[in-house]
Amino acid sequence: MRLTNMSDYAVRLLIYLSGHRDRLCTIAEIARAYDISEPHLMKITHRLAQRGWIRTVRGKNGGMALAHEPDDIRLGDLIRDMENDLTLVECMGTDNHCILSGRCGLTAIVTKALQAFMDTLNAHTLADVLPLSSPSSQGKAPAVVHARRRA
Amino acid sequence: MRLTNMSDYAVRLLIYLSGHRDRLCTIAEIARAYDISEPHLMKITHRLAQRGWIRTVRGKNGGMALAHEPDDIRLGDLIRDMENDLTLVECMGTDNHCILSGRCGLTAIVTKALQAFMDTLNAHTLADVLPLSSPSSQGKAPAVVHARRRA
Repeated sequence: MRLTNMSDYAVRLLIYLSGHRDRLCTIAEIARAYDISEPHLMKITHRLAQRGWIRTVRGKNGGMALAHEPDDIRLGDLIRDMENDLTLVECMGTDNHCILSGRCGLTAIVTKALQAFMDTLNAHTLADVLPLSSPSSQGKAPAVVHARRRA
Repeated sequence: MRLTNMSDYAVRLLIYLSGHRDRLCTIAEIARAYDISEPHLMKITHRLAQRGWIRTVRGKNGGMALAHEPDDIRLGDLIRDMENDLTLVECMGTDNHCILSGRCGLTAIVTKALQAFMDTLNAHTLADVLPLSSPSSQGKAPAVVHARRRA
């Protein structure tokens, strides 16, 4: 059981944006800062924008920025949006061929466990994961994060 | 995020054994009952035996049986044994190259969420997932499960 890179990198990307609230950031600089491929980051950016986690500005001086305050970004909601597939076992999905379906208690129990997983994540926001310093666009001196933290 | 087939099929295999407590069962009959490949089931059987969830008897009249009562088989412990990889995000594993490591709060939060997932599963046992009837070796009349259920 693993989360996809989509979720993992989405959190890193939002951490980066949290550290650079004063301007728009580009895919190129984030790719450089984290050593992640640009095409891969592009996919993640697209999904994040589509789901309203970031806002993007097109054009020469374009880029992206957080669409919400870090302490308004609940980790469970974010990860649920980034994961393509949360059918933890076959019987939770539509393409289910298990002959025990409808008679076996596993589906309900795994669904409950997934809910507990998401509830725990949702008790935390992006503000809770922010490092004291965030990777800079130069890969040198880190910019201090000034995110408003939940009281 | 998905559980591996190892976990999913392990539960089905143990459900089958729960329905046939009076004798040893063979890989061939379980493969037939669930339409799962024998080599795949063999791998699962090997892991289940290795971790003490089933006992196996070699030879012409050999086979396998549950090593514990269904209500002593906690689902979280079982699934933790069957999953090869529970490093949900890169920073939880040994092969971690994230430059935020040690400064970012994600590892601790995802670890806590995984624990909540496992705790929820561990509040249930194999007895809780058993269907009222279990697939028979003939694929016809299902054998009634006489598992002792937790009070």
